[in-house]
Amino acid sequence: MRILGVDCGSVKTGYGVIDTDGREHRLVAAGVIRVKSTLPLATRVCEIARELRALIELHSPEAAAVEEVFYSINVKSALNLAHVRGVVLLAISEAGLELGEYSPLEVKTSVVGYGRAEKCQVQKMIHSLLSLESEIRSEDACDALAVAICHATSAWLKIRGQTEHSPIS
Amino acid sequence: MRILGVDCGSVKTGYGVIDTDGREHRLVAAGVIRVKSTLPLATRVCEIARELRALIELHSPEAAAVEEVFYSINVKSALNLAHVRGVVLLAISEAGLELGEYSPLEVKTSVVGYGRAEKCQVQKMIHSLLSLESEIRSEDACDALAVAICHATSAWLKIRGQTEHSPIS
Repeated sequence: MRILGVDCGSVKTGYGVIDTDGREHRLVAAGVIRVKSTLPLATRVCEIARELRALIELHSPEAAAVEEVFYSINVKSALNLAHVRGVVLLAISEAGLELGEYSPLEVKTSVVGYGRAEKCQVQKMIHSLLSLESEIRSEDACDALAVAICHATSAWLKIRGQTEHSPIS
Repeated sequence: MRILGVDCGSVKTGYGVIDTDGREHRLVAAGVIRVKSTLPLATRVCEIARELRALIELHSPEAAAVEEVFYSINVKSALNLAHVRGVVLLAISEAGLELGEYSPLEVKTSVVGYGRAEKCQVQKMIHSLLSLESEIRSEDACDALAVAICHATSAWLKIRGQTEHSPIS
């Protein structure tokens, strides 16, 4: 299964695409959609939507995963981020992708095994889980890969659960 | 000039289209895009975007106006509303419309002449300004018409200001 992870931001939106069988994951692409903070929000959401649609077209993922909005940052930032997240959800839905939404706690627990892990621990685990030789420096791209891996694991656990509990015919 | 006003909401998004010369306004269309609150937010933003694009296609406005996000409502509602607003800004920008954004205070001041006016006062003034014979019952549609009228007045004042201050050649 190919999964697109997106880490929404009103200036930097990270993305990461992985191929996965639920236990082993392979990096396909990762990067950041950058928009100038000086641009009006309407222009920024336009650019983010355009680039995200192009990425979906290019990599043809079957599923996408995004983090839920993080409440504890300041209200203005959270509201700007929610504008971008709305547009990201739209691009994902219009492309017909299956969507998974996870809290930061779920993502960290899935990737590091500990919900209050530090950013650097998440990054380290991403590199280990994807057997990366060269370093992905962008925190936003790493966060996007983390949510993609969280979805991969969650989807695999669901399928395994269904198989284990299905009656023997 | 034809202006589309939008009153964003995660369940009911009001819209209103007016023709205006800046002082006199004529109603073209008004209504509400309703989505089920039980649907996932991703599905809701999809439906809102689809319907709004169809309205823009149908009425061909030259400009659009939306209210700024109102901070004082509860955080979860504000975040849901911001998701919808992101998608509304996207539809407006992708259609190439001029965009005006106004605070609730600016809208009320423009329509009623008093920034802390009650909803019913705004509705009464909308009916009077548009010389409506039949009542528009939806608060959301009235709010959308109010922001459209606010943009009409603001655009007219800007043009008048430029004319008055331009040197006589």
